[in-house]
Amino acid sequence: MTVVAFIGLGVMGAPMAHNLVKAGFDVIGYNRSPARADALVARGGRRADSVAEAVRDADVIVTMLPDSPDVEAVVLGEGGVLEAARHDALLIDASTVHPETGRAVAAAAQARGIRALDAPVSGGEAGAVEGALSIMVGGDEKVYESALPVLRAMGSTIVHVGPAGAGQTVKAANQLIVAGTIELVSEALVFLDARGVDLGAAVRVLAGGLAGNAVLQRKAPAMLARDFAPGFRVDLHHKDLGIVLAAAREAGVSLPLGTHVAGLIASLRAQGGGSLDHSALLLQVESLSGRRNELNALGAPPA
Amino acid sequence: MTVVAFIGLGVMGAPMAHNLVKAGFDVIGYNRSPARADALVARGGRRADSVAEAVRDADVIVTMLPDSPDVEAVVLGEGGVLEAARHDALLIDASTVHPETGRAVAAAAQARGIRALDAPVSGGEAGAVEGALSIMVGGDEKVYESALPVLRAMGSTIVHVGPAGAGQTVKAANQLIVAGTIELVSEALVFLDARGVDLGAAVRVLAGGLAGNAVLQRKAPAMLARDFAPGFRVDLHHKDLGIVLAAAREAGVSLPLGTHVAGLIASLRAQGGGSLDHSALLLQVESLSGRRNELNALGAPPA
Amino acid sequence: MTVVAFIGLGVMGAPMAHNLVKAGFDVIGYNRSPARADALVARGGRRADSVAEAVRDADVIVTMLPDSPDVEAVVLGEGGVLEAARHDALLIDASTVHPETGRAVAAAAQARGIRALDAPVSGGEAGAVEGALSIMVGGDEKVYESALPVLRAMGSTIVHVGPAGAGQTVKAANQLIVAGTIELVSEALVFLDARGVDLGAAVRVLAGGLAGNAVLQRKAPAMLARDFAPGFRVDLHHKDLGIVLAAAREAGVSLPLGTHVAGLIASLRAQGGGSLDHSALLLQVESLSGRRNELNALGAPPA
Amino acid sequence: MTVVAFIGLGVMGAPMAHNLVKAGFDVIGYNRSPARADALVARGGRRADSVAEAVRDADVIVTMLPDSPDVEAVVLGEGGVLEAARHDALLIDASTVHPETGRAVAAAAQARGIRALDAPVSGGEAGAVEGALSIMVGGDEKVYESALPVLRAMGSTIVHVGPAGAGQTVKAANQLIVAGTIELVSEALVFLDARGVDLGAAVRVLAGGLAGNAVLQRKAPAMLARDFAPGFRVDLHHKDLGIVLAAAREAGVSLPLGTHVAGLIASLRAQGGGSLDHSALLLQVESLSGRRNELNALGAPPA
Repeated sequence: MTVVAFIGLGVMGAPMAHNLVKAGFDVIGYNRSPARADALVARGGRRADSVAEAVRDADVIVTMLPDSPDVEAVVLGEGGVLEAARHDALLIDASTVHPETGRAVAAAAQARGIRALDAPVSGGEAGAVEGALSIMVGGDEKVYESALPVLRAMGSTIVHVGPAGAGQTVKAANQLIVAGTIELVSEALVFLDARGVDLGAAVRVLAGGLAGNAVLQRKAPAMLARDFAPGFRVDLHHKDLGIVLAAAREAGVSLPLGTHVAGLIASLRAQGGGSLDHSALLLQVESLSGRRNELNALGAPPA
Repeated sequence: MTVVAFIGLGVMGAPMAHNLVKAGFDVIGYNRSPARADALVARGGRRADSVAEAVRDADVIVTMLPDSPDVEAVVLGEGGVLEAARHDALLIDASTVHPETGRAVAAAAQARGIRALDAPVSGGEAGAVEGALSIMVGGDEKVYESALPVLRAMGSTIVHVGPAGAGQTVKAANQLIVAGTIELVSEALVFLDARGVDLGAAVRVLAGGLAGNAVLQRKAPAMLARDFAPGFRVDLHHKDLGIVLAAAREAGVSLPLGTHVAGLIASLRAQGGGSLDHSALLLQVESLSGRRNELNALGAPPA
Repeated sequence: MTVVAFIGLGVMGAPMAHNLVKAGFDVIGYNRSPARADALVARGGRRADSVAEAVRDADVIVTMLPDSPDVEAVVLGEGGVLEAARHDALLIDASTVHPETGRAVAAAAQARGIRALDAPVSGGEAGAVEGALSIMVGGDEKVYESALPVLRAMGSTIVHVGPAGAGQTVKAANQLIVAGTIELVSEALVFLDARGVDLGAAVRVLAGGLAGNAVLQRKAPAMLARDFAPGFRVDLHHKDLGIVLAAAREAGVSLPLGTHVAGLIASLRAQGGGSLDHSALLLQVESLSGRRNELNALGAPPA
Repeated sequence: MTVVAFIGLGVMGAPMAHNLVKAGFDVIGYNRSPARADALVARGGRRADSVAEAVRDADVIVTMLPDSPDVEAVVLGEGGVLEAARHDALLIDASTVHPETGRAVAAAAQARGIRALDAPVSGGEAGAVEGALSIMVGGDEKVYESALPVLRAMGSTIVHVGPAGAGQTVKAANQLIVAGTIELVSEALVFLDARGVDLGAAVRVLAGGLAGNAVLQRKAPAMLARDFAPGFRVDLHHKDLGIVLAAAREAGVSLPLGTHVAGLIASLRAQGGGSLDHSALLLQVESLSGRRNELNALGAPPA
């Protein structure tokens, strides 16, 4: 029976680990705040008290952590994954981090003989719970193939997109398009509303043509209902767009709209919207257009 | 048998008129360059030698013209539709024009007792040929209902979105989202290419998540194949974005990304790209990023 | 004694007319609301009760009107300047209008044998009072030379910049640079304030180098004192940037920053800031940065 | 006689050190490529073979280095300034670096009892040669006063702007305004040229009003003469704007135009313009407007 160590049992990690249990893997989980491991144990998994304990006997190690420094500490740091793992283990980092972190992890793993993939996911908490995540995988093709049984327990669209770091690059592109699309839909809605159009009808007809997109389908109804509970928080999208901008700058790539929407997300956050769903970009377009000012009621901006 | 006058037998108008013939209407067509009416006659329609002759006995009049000045001349001008039409006729303007032109036409029609709708379409030549257009309709709801038999012969998604001009407003929003989405996809592709990612695989996985959109599905394959034959020309999208900017400015609505992408389309056109498909925004991102410079080979910009 | 008709005795026009009286011209003034002519009479000018009466015997006609439609009505309209003026008169339009309006006026004047110049001014009410305006003049060089005695009574920097319309084009460029510079200074001030810098000291050192500009010298002190009384109103700058955007679009010229700042001015206006001085762009940067929200206290935006 | 160690004898550092010699200081210089110290010796200075040797007996240490990593290595690193300097020495870092580097240096110096200032300069090579630099100084006020004799030998406008790091923050704001102003002037010039205006005359009248700025005065003549030899290289401005964007992002400050112009500079560099003067932003506006394409002749972009 394949042993899978799962590091990081947060909003996304926990349901991903549960799906691995359900698929028949022997899952041993570790989380910094240990209470989060209880749910895993209740579903038939095991609990470890340290990263080293979790990975020591694992065939496969999945990490699902908030940001690059966490990955660097947990994977590359003292007592971390690479130090403690078996030399024939397979490391799958599902965190969203800078592509260079993805490459650095792969290189450090290879130096110890450990196979590694970067495999960030898209699809949100719902996708994690339903095992329906999109997973964009970077790394060696053979390693990718050997990881498929584990990846298939967590996602439904699994694509190998290139060498180490490529998964992170595609995730960055994903976050760029998502942010831009939410902003475009927000601008369209404020424009339509200002000109007296029936918004529900407009969304219906827009969704059917070349303007159609997943934001109109999945997010617009909540936006029209003025429900901005996350979902995916502005704070996290802000972090992800920081990765996009840095990676594009390094590559000399011009992102006119991407840079602009990153500024709008940063502004929304500075105005106190960090813990709202990213669809709250709508509130900012309303404010800029002098139509509503709900941002102002959000209270003090972050320090 | 309902008589339908069809004014404007261009790339879009001709197949729309043919579908009306096929649906059993008695279609009498007029086009400024009369040769374009031959195809209509060949399919069982009739030909008129003037706007006035075309509309004189028509129950329904459909106009499909390039721009606001054409609509103003053909509909409101001397010897035009409103002057010549029966007082119980129904006018459907399918042209893409400024919402205020839509309202002005409706008001002028009403002053003569003629019912009118603005009903711009989305879906391109393919949608027109297949009778699968999306049609966004502004005007009185009862008039809308009376127009449905004619509209259904031309489109598959037909939505009443509000009062006179609202159809044009939704079309403007449609063009805003489409331009922005093509640009976002272009930026993502150049970014991914610069970082060595397999573009086909990336498009596949991006299309499946919250970044998914109709541009990734319908346009990205041709973009990757570097086929920029129109389709929908940059020149026309530039015209449409002029409508969007003007209408938003009048309404005091802020369109940060919309304004930006309108500038990028205008620049692409100034660099000689006017007759390419709008997906040629990709060429501009490549040029701005110093990766390829195919724009430069386009030759002299327009005067 | 040269007779000068002066049409439009507003905030700018009145002091300009007074300076013409002071310079020894026989000035006959007309204003739509006739009370504004009293001050001119008190200083030794004369009053006319219609445009026609004012211009009938004038050697030189100066018009100083709010916008293109006013110029079209007063100059080109029935009973207007061109209809009533002598055929050897000289028309100087000091209004800020679209360059094409400047050209149209010049062409219409020429058709009647009347010499015409477009001569918009910069320098504000203070410059008008002190006769220290900058005047950018478009039209025939000989006509320009014949107009110098009149122009020198109103301004201190007087430059012939090209053919008919060129004065308006330079004024448009002036307004583009001014708006952009106020925004850049605002962004710098908010950035410096957020990072704990002494703003007065910073303005001093910035003004001395390559970052130095007239906004830092003349406007920054009031901005730091949070005094946003006009001066030059946001509403007017919004109108002027509309001219810039339209003229650039027609010429196929790309104005990345110009377009962006026009959107910011439009947004400031939509949020209720139309009657503040244009330096109130500072308030918007503060709001976008979550530092202060004084815009919100401005009350309802314009309809 | 006050001993001044000068580390970094580049384009800026060499003339600054020469001016210190001229002002009567005992200057001992160090440069990584030692040949650059010859000129200093020829003018009466001394040469050191290592940082440690240069600073060992110095009363004042001036560092003038390219970027943050250089400052970190030379000042904070092994065998560096802080390790080798006397405990009563005064460190003046004139490099342009991130404000946080400025603070980190000050904190590390204080921990060793060494007084430190961040004192970046503006004014270019000409300003350095003539001792006419603007110097923006962050740090303790008393330390600032004790440094004035040395600073006055190098600059003519010397302003204390706040605590440690504040000098760097003001320099960042300076670079933001300079880049934005060059871009605004470029947009205005292309707009004016496209509409047939006499550019020399236009620059004259623009420079006299509220649009006036140092770029119009000092840079526009070379731009009109199409001379883009540096001066200040695009590569360096790109580096500096990276500091601006990072510092603004950390502070939550929104820089709409600043972000936009940073993207335009990055694009100019990606298109091969990195070693041109920053006024080459003009070439990019011309290219975007389809008027000239000299960027394309620049050859391959940087890797």
